[in-house]
Amino acid sequence: MNAGKSTYLLQVAHNYNENGRDVALFTSSLYMQDGVGVISSRIGLKREVPTYDESTDFFALLEQTDAACVLIDEAQFLTPAQVRQLHRCAHLHNVPVMCFGIRSDFRGEPFPGSAALLVLADHLEEIKTICRCGKKATMNIRTTAQGERIREGEQIQIESSIYRQVCARCFYD
Amino acid sequence: MNAGKSTYLLQVAHNYNENGRDVALFTSSLYMQDGVGVISSRIGLKREVPTYDESTDFFALLEQTDAACVLIDEAQFLTPAQVRQLHRCAHLHNVPVMCFGIRSDFRGEPFPGSAALLVLADHLEEIKTICRCGKKATMNIRTTAQGERIREGEQIQIESSIYRQVCARCFYD
Amino acid sequence: MNAGKSTYLLQVAHNYNENGRDVALFTSSLYMQDGVGVISSRIGLKREVPTYDESTDFFALLEQTDAACVLIDEAQFLTPAQVRQLHRCAHLHNVPVMCFGIRSDFRGEPFPGSAALLVLADHLEEIKTICRCGKKATMNIRTTAQGERIREGEQIQIESSIYRQVCARCFYD
Amino acid sequence: MNAGKSTYLLQVAHNYNENGRDVALFTSSLYMQDGVGVISSRIGLKREVPTYDESTDFFALLEQTDAACVLIDEAQFLTPAQVRQLHRCAHLHNVPVMCFGIRSDFRGEPFPGSAALLVLADHLEEIKTICRCGKKATMNIRTTAQGERIREGEQIQIESSIYRQVCARCFYD
Repeated sequence: MNAGKSTYLLQVAHNYNENGRDVALFTSSLYMQDGVGVISSRIGLKREVPTYDESTDFFALLEQTDAACVLIDEAQFLTPAQVRQLHRCAHLHNVPVMCFGIRSDFRGEPFPGSAALLVLADHLEEIKTICRCGKKATMNIRTTAQGERIREGEQIQIESSIYRQVCARCFYD
Repeated sequence: MNAGKSTYLLQVAHNYNENGRDVALFTSSLYMQDGVGVISSRIGLKREVPTYDESTDFFALLEQTDAACVLIDEAQFLTPAQVRQLHRCAHLHNVPVMCFGIRSDFRGEPFPGSAALLVLADHLEEIKTICRCGKKATMNIRTTAQGERIREGEQIQIESSIYRQVCARCFYD
Repeated sequence: MNAGKSTYLLQVAHNYNENGRDVALFTSSLYMQDGVGVISSRIGLKREVPTYDESTDFFALLEQTDAACVLIDEAQFLTPAQVRQLHRCAHLHNVPVMCFGIRSDFRGEPFPGSAALLVLADHLEEIKTICRCGKKATMNIRTTAQGERIREGEQIQIESSIYRQVCARCFYD
Repeated sequence: MNAGKSTYLLQVAHNYNENGRDVALFTSSLYMQDGVGVISSRIGLKREVPTYDESTDFFALLEQTDAACVLIDEAQFLTPAQVRQLHRCAHLHNVPVMCFGIRSDFRGEPFPGSAALLVLADHLEEIKTICRCGKKATMNIRTTAQGERIREGEQIQIESSIYRQVCARCFYD
């Protein structure tokens, strides 16, 4: 369910590494395969990384980091408190923190972590993809395996769900 | 307490009007002078406009609008439900809606309306201003008339308060 | 002939001045009224400023400036050599330089100064306005007083000319 | 010599293809391997594509295209006339055209094609990478195999040259 954000994240990590600099990568513990966190991109890129969950204290974790940059995938699952930790970290320890995620869930409701990131971030950047109708996709929907839209349910459901990115007009139709 | 967002809003309205097109302008009912809503800019621009409060139903209000564009100032005071109305309006009635506001309050906490706007908006644009230290200001603080920082209190307090825009580092210091 | 860029420039100057900081403002010597350079905005703002012409050496001029920021209006009339001076200035003397101008002339041809700015600038920002058709205006046309389009002539003609901002589709039609 | 622009281009193509839509991809004829155009990314992605050279007439070529999007890599080698063809194409045939390239050469001088693109494009987007010093890289330098900087020579030299992206301060030092 993405526009290439994991591709972009892995490219940024690659740029730093090519310059001889370390990066600290994290993904959500919801994205584990065989017990290991994995950032993977549908275009074929993949990297094993540490995971975070709601108990992770980023301020403590990054206090003495040597990383030139912190990159967090699936950042919509951060808690607002963790977003605040990362924000303090960026400004008090002076380490760039880049968080990649989606803004709203399949009902168009905010992820609390995404809302917190959008409110505090110094720079906001959009990774664009298209809706089937050709317009810019800004939202997403949950479907059955047969492509039928599901309008109600839990905010987070990864394993058995299929997501599709859509524009706002198609979302409301 | 702004970086020129009211100036920018009034300039956009002016551009539309110069092209012979009407715009629908609103500000929060908290910004009334002598019972009339006023959008004013410290650089010297000023325009009387209708106000909205939490009971305003934008979807109904704009259903039959002739306006070429809807412009809302002090949009941090919108409710999340109103943001949803405006979003549906933009995409189902096809009228551009531009909302101008600040992201976080004097404690660094989100305004619910701003969080909702940031999560749903098709385009996000930043109006930049500077902190006294010279860095980009992304947050704001509340002070006494003597310039002393106030760290606790109600989220919304307009009349007797003084605000100053600061960068995140100065915010945390 | 603008989308509000002079408004935006004067607002930035105002923000710096309100923070107790000086700015160095310039406009082209083509924009003099009674021998004095003037930055003015159709919405009603106005400020007298020094002018530059093609003989101005910005690197020498700004070497010992106390200004916290350099703001240049009608920057399409800079020479590519002046753009290079300003670029060196920004990076070797560490003073922010913001240039405001239009990209192409009434034939859709680049202004040499604008092309040089777009190629070297660290940050590019678009000030948006609309075409009469409602789309985003990215180009401009020259017309007679009666509104008839003029397709040939000198690149620079200020006094007796009328300009209108249009989208690319209307430009080519 | 890139920040991931080929990665980004191939990701956009992938997004369109996943939505069941064709894209028209091109790279410069300077980027042929064994007689075939190749877009490749240091992170490991690769795709064979048609090439363009200075004799290509894009307006004729794309007049009857079924492609949902045109993607051009190494777009700094376009001629200004080709940029104009692509611009007309985008606005008269209504097909999105995305061009990926670098702005300036190893001497800080514009590529004529890049200057033309920057002047006419409807949307400008920056793909960021970092200088060895940690700042944002906006320029590039040519070096010997031993890493020694070369300051003079032809604008275009691909085979035997090594390039490195640098920030403007390091460029001028």
